[in-house]
Amino acid sequence: MIDAEQVWAHLNALAKPRRSLGRLEALAVRLAVIQQRRDPVTRPRRIVLFAGDHGVVADGVSAWPSEVTGLMVGTILAGRATSSAFAATHDCDLRLVDVGGLAPLPENAPAFFRDGRVASGTKSLAHGPAMTVEQFDAAWAVGVEEADRAVAEGHRLLIAGEMGIGNTTPAACLTALLAGASPEGATGAGAGAGDAMVAAKARIVAAAAARAAALLDEDSRAAIAEVCGYEIAAMAGFFARGAALGATLLLDGYVATAGALIAKRLAPGTAEAMIAGHRSAEPGHAAALDALGLEPLLDWGMRLGEGTGALVALPLVDAAAALLTGVARLDALGVGRED
Amino acid sequence: MIDAEQVWAHLNALAKPRRSLGRLEALAVRLAVIQQRRDPVTRPRRIVLFAGDHGVVADGVSAWPSEVTGLMVGTILAGRATSSAFAATHDCDLRLVDVGGLAPLPENAPAFFRDGRVASGTKSLAHGPAMTVEQFDAAWAVGVEEADRAVAEGHRLLIAGEMGIGNTTPAACLTALLAGASPEGATGAGAGAGDAMVAAKARIVAAAAARAAALLDEDSRAAIAEVCGYEIAAMAGFFARGAALGATLLLDGYVATAGALIAKRLAPGTAEAMIAGHRSAEPGHAAALDALGLEPLLDWGMRLGEGTGALVALPLVDAAAALLTGVARLDALGVGRED
Repeated sequence: MIDAEQVWAHLNALAKPRRSLGRLEALAVRLAVIQQRRDPVTRPRRIVLFAGDHGVVADGVSAWPSEVTGLMVGTILAGRATSSAFAATHDCDLRLVDVGGLAPLPENAPAFFRDGRVASGTKSLAHGPAMTVEQFDAAWAVGVEEADRAVAEGHRLLIAGEMGIGNTTPAACLTALLAGASPEGATGAGAGAGDAMVAAKARIVAAAAARAAALLDEDSRAAIAEVCGYEIAAMAGFFARGAALGATLLLDGYVATAGALIAKRLAPGTAEAMIAGHRSAEPGHAAALDALGLEPLLDWGMRLGEGTGALVALPLVDAAAALLTGVARLDALGVGRED
Repeated sequence: MIDAEQVWAHLNALAKPRRSLGRLEALAVRLAVIQQRRDPVTRPRRIVLFAGDHGVVADGVSAWPSEVTGLMVGTILAGRATSSAFAATHDCDLRLVDVGGLAPLPENAPAFFRDGRVASGTKSLAHGPAMTVEQFDAAWAVGVEEADRAVAEGHRLLIAGEMGIGNTTPAACLTALLAGASPEGATGAGAGAGDAMVAAKARIVAAAAARAAALLDEDSRAAIAEVCGYEIAAMAGFFARGAALGATLLLDGYVATAGALIAKRLAPGTAEAMIAGHRSAEPGHAAALDALGLEPLLDWGMRLGEGTGALVALPLVDAAAALLTGVARLDALGVGRED
């Protein structure tokens, strides 16, 4: 059992002034404690992007139509999405799993694509349950399988990303439900909604979150299924299994964090494996991260999704690992400490 | 001529919500404008570490003795310093140039080491000029040669780092002299000085900066030489020539920024090629960055030196470049913009 104190003792013995790397040292400690080794590893690593559509888009919560989900799936398959570019530049393996899209499934897709579709989009959470508990379980299981596969293939650090037009609406419901945020505080502009649309979205979130909250004590999964998305359920399963298998989880933004809140609720302890990549521009993200006990590495006003915030932050974790593994101890140089 | 507006127009056309990557987009714009190309490059890249010693250490300004400079030079040569670890993990070529150390020069050093020694340490700036103008020019020239060499060898992004016990004292003098900071505001704990030592250091800084300021209008180089360090002068020449050759300069912390202030003074326009990697824990760094008109990428309380803050931030610049070069335009997908 490696605890934080042991990692700090190692850092304090290195050939550099004590604590002179500020937050990077705290990150190194967290990474080592998550992995239970003084020489943590961040490679190989994988991002799994989960795609799904949302019936609530028909109720006017998004600046973009649901068709864009399928178009972006195609762009990811072509290696030309933002997530593709960041994964390539930061040496991160990428998979894409359609867990609930509306568009026809791609033909002749590359091997990194998986058809894991549970249903063709959720029902609108504005009018009733977004999915059944059985559908929630099936989407969760897709995520579990992806974590199993990633770890079996040697990956030590995992990122979950998502693509799903409208998915900040279920994320806002889940943040209200599981992190105690107010519906208004949990609701933001998503991918570019105007003020009137945000106000309408907040009313939908308030009503749906209230329905879900009424179910929460009796049946957590039913409450979550009431307002969830397939890609969010899959991310939750991915996180839960990834943590159970000892992987390090690098968390993306608002929608991925909603998945993390589900995982924490249904698989307590999952958040202990997490590092928060960034704080999103979505106003509810801070409350969600607080509920997980996480401090984000970056606060850059990013809100793209697709795992991009986690991918941007990924090399910061590499540097933390390099600090623990690549630096000499001062006593090896024959110098006493003066600081 | 590429201006910021053209780069923003490209970013706004990409297959993602407009401005959805927050600060990363502003970084991408700066990078493209610096390089005057819409597809900027960040590889190959090099860090040059300049080492030097400081006579003022004898006056009690540092928690560590000057011998540690030579020991850390040896650690860098062995590939076991923090800068070594970060450069390796982030794929950055590394060179080390002794421009003013006190220790005997290393024997059988690897090819990435250069003996560029101008003198064996500065004289104490507490008692008179740290170096002559001729010595300043010679150290500057070493930096110029390193920039020439780096660019000739294909490097497109350059980092300067330093190793020199006591060098936050000349950095504080230069920040007071060239960025208008008060001596007290420019003086911090460096590599771990206690309160009494910091107070004594601030008095030395105040007196030396006042001597230098009296020379500034008549002879900038004489004023700078009064309080400079050899590694700082070399970094200044490195920045000035690197910018003139069209390289992108990624700036490290307090001491490197003092070199940047010199470069800006003696080679106006140099700061236009700079991106600030981080804001140091040293209290004077914010004023120095302000004087250069730079917003730091990270604010993580780092204060190690050796270019480590810039190395930690380096992959953020890679991501900005990847955004500009690797992402499809939305119109290529046949979708109108809704945001």
